[in-house]
Amino acid sequence: MKKAMVVIAVFVTAVSLVSWTHIVAALDGKPTPETIKDTEARFLKAALEHGSTGYLSFYSESAVELPDGADALIGRANIARTMRFLDDKNNRLTWAPVGADISASGDLGYTWGTYEFRSKGPDGVDRVEHGKYLTVWKKQPDGTWKVAVDMGNKGPVQR
Amino acid sequence: MKKAMVVIAVFVTAVSLVSWTHIVAALDGKPTPETIKDTEARFLKAALEHGSTGYLSFYSESAVELPDGADALIGRANIARTMRFLDDKNNRLTWAPVGADISASGDLGYTWGTYEFRSKGPDGVDRVEHGKYLTVWKKQPDGTWKVAVDMGNKGPVQR
Repeated sequence: MKKAMVVIAVFVTAVSLVSWTHIVAALDGKPTPETIKDTEARFLKAALEHGSTGYLSFYSESAVELPDGADALIGRANIARTMRFLDDKNNRLTWAPVGADISASGDLGYTWGTYEFRSKGPDGVDRVEHGKYLTVWKKQPDGTWKVAVDMGNKGPVQR
Repeated sequence: MKKAMVVIAVFVTAVSLVSWTHIVAALDGKPTPETIKDTEARFLKAALEHGSTGYLSFYSESAVELPDGADALIGRANIARTMRFLDDKNNRLTWAPVGADISASGDLGYTWGTYEFRSKGPDGVDRVEHGKYLTVWKKQPDGTWKVAVDMGNKGPVQR
């Protein structure tokens, strides 16, 4: 009888410990889709305030960019060469997520949404282009979220 | 002394059970990036053999499609209306993954790669278009992998 009670006590303790680690993980700010949306808001702020440098600070070193009308770019250094247009004050790229999801393990997620690109044409006239994007986010060993893959394409053709 | 031995025995059994479940998960084919690439190969085969029906059988009910030059389509039923071109024998859409990754929990992953779309122009002349894609895959409650979000855009402009 005593033996049985000890077994039960150890079992209950073990179960409690397992539940406790889950509760701690949740309280500890386990990532949710909102975590990635929040990261994306900081990503946008960095790009608006610091141009291409701010934009690229949210890309992982091995990130992949899939630009519309061009071949895939592999690696942040290669992507950087194509992002200097963000440093031109005539250009303003903004975006907003519509959907987001995250893995159960909280290490991989994505956002998709719409972007707006305002620029000045060669004729000096303001231009506005609308499109969509899909971004895969991956949690890095240092705990920060970085872009793993990013892609964009055009919205309905405006004439 | 007897009590202590019982406690140790229960503890060792508990630890063994935990390790065992991990080993079983690994042997049981814990998903890897290759798992998603394999799914994608079956996805392509289904589309080539059964047209839009085969293609859409790999989409989750709540899937999001981000078509180039159009607005986002939310839900498999809405996506289905735009995929009938796959049932035209003059059209042949093929694709191949280049990169893939999966979450530690094995429930969310992605592939990116290139596609080729062969069709006949209104003049009856064969046309070939090249582009890229990014697909987010999500494991469903029934254990199958389905497309959660899919996007494509054009490769370098060919003239």
